[in-house]
Amino acid sequence: MSLWKLILTYDGTPFNGWQVQPSLPTVQGTLAHAIHHITGESVLPQGSGRTDAGVHALAQVASFSLDAPIPPANLRHALNRALPASIRILSAEIAPAGFHARHSARRKTYEYRISTAAICSPMLAPYVWSHHLPLDLATLERAAAHILGTHDFTSFSASDPDLATRTNQTDDDPPQEKTAIRTIHHSAWHQHEDLLVYRITGSGFLHHMVRNLVGTFAEAGTGRIPPHSIPTILAARNRSAAGPTAPARGLFLVEVEY
Amino acid sequence: MSLWKLILTYDGTPFNGWQVQPSLPTVQGTLAHAIHHITGESVLPQGSGRTDAGVHALAQVASFSLDAPIPPANLRHALNRALPASIRILSAEIAPAGFHARHSARRKTYEYRISTAAICSPMLAPYVWSHHLPLDLATLERAAAHILGTHDFTSFSASDPDLATRTNQTDDDPPQEKTAIRTIHHSAWHQHEDLLVYRITGSGFLHHMVRNLVGTFAEAGTGRIPPHSIPTILAARNRSAAGPTAPARGLFLVEVEY
Repeated sequence: MSLWKLILTYDGTPFNGWQVQPSLPTVQGTLAHAIHHITGESVLPQGSGRTDAGVHALAQVASFSLDAPIPPANLRHALNRALPASIRILSAEIAPAGFHARHSARRKTYEYRISTAAICSPMLAPYVWSHHLPLDLATLERAAAHILGTHDFTSFSASDPDLATRTNQTDDDPPQEKTAIRTIHHSAWHQHEDLLVYRITGSGFLHHMVRNLVGTFAEAGTGRIPPHSIPTILAARNRSAAGPTAPARGLFLVEVEY
Repeated sequence: MSLWKLILTYDGTPFNGWQVQPSLPTVQGTLAHAIHHITGESVLPQGSGRTDAGVHALAQVASFSLDAPIPPANLRHALNRALPASIRILSAEIAPAGFHARHSARRKTYEYRISTAAICSPMLAPYVWSHHLPLDLATLERAAAHILGTHDFTSFSASDPDLATRTNQTDDDPPQEKTAIRTIHHSAWHQHEDLLVYRITGSGFLHHMVRNLVGTFAEAGTGRIPPHSIPTILAARNRSAAGPTAPARGLFLVEVEY
């Protein structure tokens, strides 16, 4: 029995999110199917966290155990042959004993991409939020800096109680962490031609947290709220204090650190 | 009654090509539906040429007539609101009398993109041919230079007689041009990181012609055939003399000149 760690990238567009669901294409289900096709073994790979429908990954991590001994390069090649082009295995390796893609994660990095082009290229549309109001970069940066450090992020967590429960059961963070307190190490915007790109690194993320942060920062970027209202929104510990949820398609899971 | 000229860009992935088909999503059908939604008028916009399923356009041209007087900027905005994000109208203008998107076209430019990355990003996969054998750029360039000028391109035209007939009836070129003789003004490769990009400008193109040229150039690029065999392949005037058809997803219609 070997414990495996995969690093994989995927286009979230054709999938109903990471988590396996009956009769719907999901990344976890498609990966499990490919593993079974190659090894004959039925396993459910555990992701570092679930990504919602339409969310992409540049480097998601998954762990699972297999009975069959397989050279890591062979498993990677065989999976890339069996999987659709929308999922690629970047690396496959034997993990140290006790490794778990979700429970062992220490820091995660997400990126969110907004296109400010007057007409968004159809080839880019599945990967950005096409935002039609001007967004001021300096204001976005001031707003984003307010969440650095350790805060209670209840105001930026999915308000749907069912979603919140699912989050505590199965989302990013170790199951013992039942609070909404998270530590943010990096939170910054940069501009690249028509793209505004937000990058955030933290100890963990509540369900919808990055999309709710981006939706709120965008409210600041358009001048609807002042950037210094972010501390007030955090202090409210109420989802309704924050801005709308930014669309899934602009979000990328970029890195998981262990 | 006004004659309209639209310039539009689309992602070919979700469509069964340009040409309208019953019960299948096509670019022409989706555009006709949006025009009807806005104006109440049933028209079939004529493209500069049909693109096959999976082929993309950076600047396709379409023409049609409308009874209703509409300011051009309003038609563009209304169409972009009515259309899916996979089709964007870049410009809408009143065309000179007698203009026809296909019959009036003088030159067209296509681009073909090959990814040579060991693992092709899922976000790039719908827009490139992921080619797993090394391709020599200098050899690709030598092969591509052989088609400059005026030649009979029968060897690079779709061999399916049904397809060939359809081409003469409805494809790129004025209907009087029933021969396979075309003039190529530009035919060159360049490399940008992991992408090999081929660009071709010509008086017109037979069905599958760019994809058959790229498939044949790739045979030269891998060393399977010498680049100087291109004139021999042209002289054969036989589809079986040339290489395979490159996949649709790497092909972009870039510009139509009038």
